[in-house]
Amino acid sequence: MKIAAKKASLPRPISAQGFKPVAYFCGIVLLATATMMAFPMLADLYFGNEDWKAFAFAGVLTFIPGMSLVYFTKGSLKAGLGLRQAFLLTPLSWLAVSIFSAIPFYLSDYGIVRGSLADSFFEAVSGITTTGATVISGLNAAPPGMLLWRALLQWMGGIGIIATAIAILPALGIGGMQLFRTESSDRSEKAMPRVRQIAATLGKTYLGLTVLAVLVYWATGMRIFDAIAHAMTSIATGGYSTSDASFGQWESNGIQWFATLFMLSGTIPFVLYVRFIAGDRRAFLDRQIRTLAVFLAVTITLIAGWLFSSGTYALEPAFRHAAFNVVSVVTTTGYATTDYTLWGNALVGVFFGLTFVGGCTGSTSGGIKIFRFEVLAIMLKAHFMRLIYPRGVFPRYYGDRKLDDDVVGSVVAFFAVFFLAYSALTVGLMGFGLDFLTSASGAATAVANVGPGLGDTIGPAGNFGSLPDGAKWLLSLGMLLGRLELFTVLILFVPRFWRG
Amino acid sequence: MKIAAKKASLPRPISAQGFKPVAYFCGIVLLATATMMAFPMLADLYFGNEDWKAFAFAGVLTFIPGMSLVYFTKGSLKAGLGLRQAFLLTPLSWLAVSIFSAIPFYLSDYGIVRGSLADSFFEAVSGITTTGATVISGLNAAPPGMLLWRALLQWMGGIGIIATAIAILPALGIGGMQLFRTESSDRSEKAMPRVRQIAATLGKTYLGLTVLAVLVYWATGMRIFDAIAHAMTSIATGGYSTSDASFGQWESNGIQWFATLFMLSGTIPFVLYVRFIAGDRRAFLDRQIRTLAVFLAVTITLIAGWLFSSGTYALEPAFRHAAFNVVSVVTTTGYATTDYTLWGNALVGVFFGLTFVGGCTGSTSGGIKIFRFEVLAIMLKAHFMRLIYPRGVFPRYYGDRKLDDDVVGSVVAFFAVFFLAYSALTVGLMGFGLDFLTSASGAATAVANVGPGLGDTIGPAGNFGSLPDGAKWLLSLGMLLGRLELFTVLILFVPRFWRG
Ligand SMILES: [K+]
Ligand SMILES: [K+]
Repeated sequence: MKIAAKKASLPRPISAQGFKPVAYFCGIVLLATATMMAFPMLADLYFGNEDWKAFAFAGVLTFIPGMSLVYFTKGSLKAGLGLRQAFLLTPLSWLAVSIFSAIPFYLSDYGIVRGSLADSFFEAVSGITTTGATVISGLNAAPPGMLLWRALLQWMGGIGIIATAIAILPALGIGGMQLFRTESSDRSEKAMPRVRQIAATLGKTYLGLTVLAVLVYWATGMRIFDAIAHAMTSIATGGYSTSDASFGQWESNGIQWFATLFMLSGTIPFVLYVRFIAGDRRAFLDRQIRTLAVFLAVTITLIAGWLFSSGTYALEPAFRHAAFNVVSVVTTTGYATTDYTLWGNALVGVFFGLTFVGGCTGSTSGGIKIFRFEVLAIMLKAHFMRLIYPRGVFPRYYGDRKLDDDVVGSVVAFFAVFFLAYSALTVGLMGFGLDFLTSASGAATAVANVGPGLGDTIGPAGNFGSLPDGAKWLLSLGMLLGRLELFTVLILFVPRFWRG
Repeated sequence: MKIAAKKASLPRPISAQGFKPVAYFCGIVLLATATMMAFPMLADLYFGNEDWKAFAFAGVLTFIPGMSLVYFTKGSLKAGLGLRQAFLLTPLSWLAVSIFSAIPFYLSDYGIVRGSLADSFFEAVSGITTTGATVISGLNAAPPGMLLWRALLQWMGGIGIIATAIAILPALGIGGMQLFRTESSDRSEKAMPRVRQIAATLGKTYLGLTVLAVLVYWATGMRIFDAIAHAMTSIATGGYSTSDASFGQWESNGIQWFATLFMLSGTIPFVLYVRFIAGDRRAFLDRQIRTLAVFLAVTITLIAGWLFSSGTYALEPAFRHAAFNVVSVVTTTGYATTDYTLWGNALVGVFFGLTFVGGCTGSTSGGIKIFRFEVLAIMLKAHFMRLIYPRGVFPRYYGDRKLDDDVVGSVVAFFAVFFLAYSALTVGLMGFGLDFLTSASGAATAVANVGPGLGDTIGPAGNFGSLPDGAKWLLSLGMLLGRLELFTVLILFVPRFWRG
């Protein structure tokens, strides 16, 4: 698909014709979703669970509109996408998947979600956005199909956001992503074979990492089913687990250390894997990764030191729990080994702050993301220099790239809109009667796609099931907003977008 | 005093000689502080309270270093100030006043603050920064000298910040204040008589408004002593009261409506009074004021409507309590008529958000301030237009002034640093074991110089007395940071500032 930025800069409202390629893409995505529903259906059939019918029925209900869209708009994507169409395509396709992948929950035999629109939609959105906040308790006894479906949603969502972040967001100029306009964003005819090759390598890497995680989790003590589910939700930094105790359930053979590594593997910009495979030995010495590594090392050491010196844990468990849970929150995975909110009020504050950070861009991680903090730091440093030398000129560089005003402005706009959305969501949740900690941490964990909040209700030891329906709808909106980097959604509410 | 921005842009480290004008200015300010201590001393003498000795002794302790500084650095200010000196002067003079005006509290007979460094410093900083958070309970029984001293501190702090915001901050280019570089910031020899005239009109306006408030409060039911104290803390948007119940103590003859008006009069940019007095009938149709008026009208109407329709209050009290408390928080005064945190979780969220807003710049209000939200909105609007038309050029205007990158960058840097300081302070407070709501609202109310926080401990019905000393020191730092628009303080920690 080509994004013709040039054409789109002309005032050109979207015609009915213009919706066609968007509809076509949504159709393709729905067909993929319907296909994926076969796996949980088969799992339920294999384990003899009646819930297979929910997936069969949902599969048909998803296939029909998907096929219709594709049939009636066939060939419309070949002409490429205008800027407006690219903007439309992103939220609409994610919304379509969210709605249809909620159907199995709604039709399920499983009492907690069955027949509840709010619960089903929340769980589906939390899956596809790789947030991992759940309304389901009693996971250990949930039907295998549903557990697999939750994992699959996150796994699809993970590769989906990588594709979006590489192929679409940089061209839209959103949130400073234009910094990452690379050869893989080049959509000229000549570049297409190369783009296809990159896409293939990306897919293989994603699959390869997942298979590796399955094997490691299996070898270190999980049942194969749990290993598959956790492998998918680790690489996707999704965080859905098959146990209410999350990784607290598994402690053998260093499994939590391995999980920490797999979460980290999911937060690495996936183009770097492609570069590494293409022979660039120094690919992983990327600036974002170095900053993230230093940040994690310092944070983990401080927390582990505190846990050890306060007598909460012996040395190895102190480092293990600190590393696992910090990595889990910063990569926006959202697994837990233990209820870290019991480590004291100071650490509640720290984990609240960590919720916003996020991993690297172009990975499966959510949150604000490391490079935006780097850009902010560069901007602030230049500002302080300007205060000291009002007539000085201070060019800003990100690595060897000059940071122009467009990038800095986009990053700053991202921060502003992120915190505005977060604040509005917090107040909205309080409007449903939730307390301040639940509201603020719930809003943060939704927009940053982390998963668990803080406090007794939605903390790492709780779940989102008891919240009022209105709060679940709000949080679902927050998860989609955050996952799609806010602007792709918000721009649809700018009247000018439609007038052209 | 002249600020020679040209000279200062040359790399020139501060010599011992360079400190002299700064020391001179601090000396002047200390002499003024010592003089002000005479009033509470006289009040205690008049009411026969032994506490007069604390003020007498503190006055001497403040006079001696003040006089010494002035004596040994006499004439040094005449040469004007370099940029670095202007940066230094602001935090050092405010810190000096904070320290010395804490002495009467420390020496007082009054058990709550007597002998406690943390409490005395907190109360003094909260006064001079016009924050109004207090560690003192049992105000109704406190010695009159102390009550008057608290009011006087805020009154001095109020005119002090107006002077700083008009004469110093625009020249430093801090937080977008360069938008307000006017004739009154012009420091050429020719402009000096005019600057003196403006300063005189400002002083008279400030005094006139205060006297008017005294008369109105007295006429509507306060004792003259309470009327004087509240007049000073209303115009200064300070919020210190002589009663634990704040304005809940007084409800006669529309006194709360009048107080609402006086708080509003303190949040108007004081140069507008000067312009109005100089004959500009349309002075108050200023852009900031119109935005603030619309914002207040909408917020108050919504809250009053909710209070009325939910049956909490009848119509007049609903509007009165909504108007008073919203205006109190938005103007960063911090009085209360009632414990608005009991109006429900939704309104706790709203009041938390209001804590950040702030009034107009160049007034006695703290917080982020209206014009920065306006600049942010203009910036975001231009950004959305740019997303829709990537090749378009969208000049940004604030009224009829072009918003250049320097102003936008300064405003954005202000937001970033404001929220970083707020976040760090929140985590720091949680580190002292405070709960999340207390920490987050305490940090916000300190940096925004509002006064009351939220929650049972530091909410409008509580006070800061029970917090651990470490938290009080942190909050004191936060109040000073916020009052001095962050950058004047933070720049002292940039090594480059000292190297030149
Ligand atoms: K997650
Ligand atoms: K105040």
